[in-house]
Amino acid sequence: MADAGRIELRLRIRLGDAIAMGPGKADLLDAIDGTGSIAAAARRLGMSYRRAWLLVEEMNSCFSVPLVEAKPGAGAQLSDSARAVLAAYRASDAAGQAAANKAAGPMIAALRSGGSDDQ
Amino acid sequence: MADAGRIELRLRIRLGDAIAMGPGKADLLDAIDGTGSIAAAARRLGMSYRRAWLLVEEMNSCFSVPLVEAKPGAGAQLSDSARAVLAAYRASDAAGQAAANKAAGPMIAALRSGGSDDQ
Repeated sequence: MADAGRIELRLRIRLGDAIAMGPGKADLLDAIDGTGSIAAAARRLGMSYRRAWLLVEEMNSCFSVPLVEAKPGAGAQLSDSARAVLAAYRASDAAGQAAANKAAGPMIAALRSGGSDDQ
Repeated sequence: MADAGRIELRLRIRLGDAIAMGPGKADLLDAIDGTGSIAAAARRLGMSYRRAWLLVEEMNSCFSVPLVEAKPGAGAQLSDSARAVLAAYRASDAAGQAAANKAAGPMIAALRSGGSDDQ
């Protein structure tokens, strides 16, 4: 079982001390979009409601237009701004990954080709 | 004091469960190259000797040619393969960062422009 190397890239957008966007927050936005509520999104991602709320508050505080609009008793939804931000995050992540992969050739080629069974 | 958003990208190369290369390991290679010893490199980076050794062992086990050649009593130096791997890692990281930045425009534009003093 040869085990090829793989590139992992983590992209974060920082504003001062806050993290405006990152892999976890992007997934949370997707889950809120898919479920229509912060509570259901938290359950889907296996995180506490409190943690999901804190992530939403941190995101909302970083952008000039809040990304998540939550109405007590009426669920939550993404703003138009959130959709634009999320699309740009995914595009930026994919572009970074593709470019990093392209330049990584000599590093990948130098990796041991076998898995743990060849030592 | 306006606080512009900034993109942070972390690139890791994984081989199975091991992390073959990442920001900390790349900095350690640079420090070994600059100091000629694992102990001095560890001191420069503020990490324990033991931790530096474990990182070196993890790296060496992931590549077909060891990256760090340590000789008891004679310090440590990078192999030619290490220089190629390190150059590819830095190039891959820079290319990823540039591409991610380029695609991040709409996300950066949506950030709050002011710092903590404008709320």
